Amino acid sequence: MDKKTKVKRVPKRGHYDQETIFNILDKAFLCHVGFIHEGYPVVIPTLYGRKDDILFLHGSAASRMMKDLANGIDVSICVSLVNGLVLARSAFHHSMNYESVVLFGKAEMVEDPEAKMAGLKVVSDQVLKGRWEEVRLPNEKEMKATTLLQIQIKEASAKIRTGPPGDDKEDYELDIWAGVVPVKHKFLPAEVDPLLKAGINLPDSVKNLFNE
Amino acid sequence: MDKKTKVKRVPKRGHYDQETIFNILDKAFLCHVGFIHEGYPVVIPTLYGRKDDILFLHGSAASRMMKDLANGIDVSICVSLVNGLVLARSAFHHSMNYESVVLFGKAEMVEDPEAKMAGLKVVSDQVLKGRWEEVRLPNEKEMKATTLLQIQIKEASAKIRTGPPGDDKEDYELDIWAGVVPVKHKFLPAEVDPLLKAGINLPDSVKNLFNE
Repeated sequence: MDKKTKVKRVPKRGHYDQETIFNILDKAFLCHVGFIHEGYPVVIPTLYGRKDDILFLHGSAASRMMKDLANGIDVSICVSLVNGLVLARSAFHHSMNYESVVLFGKAEMVEDPEAKMAGLKVVSDQVLKGRWEEVRLPNEKEMKATTLLQIQIKEASAKIRTGPPGDDKEDYELDIWAGVVPVKHKFLPAEVDPLLKAGINLPDSVKNLFNE
Repeated sequence: MDKKTKVKRVPKRGHYDQETIFNILDKAFLCHVGFIHEGYPVVIPTLYGRKDDILFLHGSAASRMMKDLANGIDVSICVSLVNGLVLARSAFHHSMNYESVVLFGKAEMVEDPEAKMAGLKVVSDQVLKGRWEEVRLPNEKEMKATTLLQIQIKEASAKIRTGPPGDDKEDYELDIWAGVVPVKHKFLPAEVDPLLKAGINLPDSVKNLFNE
């Protein structure tokens, strides 16, 4: 564990074991990528997929970020899930329940066609398991227009907060409500493409979102 | 509009007017802050509040990020909302419906006690309107333990995608389902602090979350 990823504040909220880190990464599909462009820090949101200790990012071959990252510059990637508003009796002890991972690495371009197709499937699976098997797969032209990057997760740390607020001892006597308002990401019923051919049913990938 | 924030890819998704940018910033309360620490890019999630063209960030006075940022280094801040999974007939045209803002600036510490209290209220209001009026406000010791930073939004851009998938003309004939699965952030019923004094009702701030 390098000092870059050491959780300095509230060390009890820091977790470094691989299982915890992978588990958080597997709950989301959007990450925020930080990198340095012409001397300035830049943060961009993008989709990702994880397999083993590899994070895959994909994007247009024409994208500035993909080109920058493909040069093997340092990147920092953050994945965070907000799980609740923690409402304490004092303004000071208000907080969030959350899970987050910050990782560091360098990206490299995946060029081998088979490895690239497999990596794109990892990203697709992360967003919606089973969708890859239902759709028209990328043709040669589309593969050329797509950049796939892989980042080996060499250094990462997780932070997690759960549970009720923690107030100062004397504040528990105050007549102020305290508790947690849980926050959840929910999928709503699918909106069918107005241009969909008649007679095509909702696919299993989408149905499964609502059976979980 | 500086070239740093010019939306290069899919220019039709780029929006630069202030109203659009503020509107997106007002829909969220979590941002991802990018900065350079000892030559490396770092991305950290944190709460924020917007008032006029100022973004406020708060944190522990002991936090490494707050100390770094208070030195007036360059920061990039990203706020993103995922609104839907865009499921096309081809893997290639899969996308997300989303709204995001990327902005650039430099932070400065708010030291004047009145301005600091007002800025902390802006962050509190962003997370849960009305909560500030219900709680015990920060005392002198807590104010000292808290750093408040303000970042004037000088340069920002927004990206928005809405609507159904856009497939290649010939793919509309395929027997593949296409559409959008909307994604929503939902609040679930509050979990009362097990240590709450008897006889205290749910406050208006929390009730209002469910009346919206």
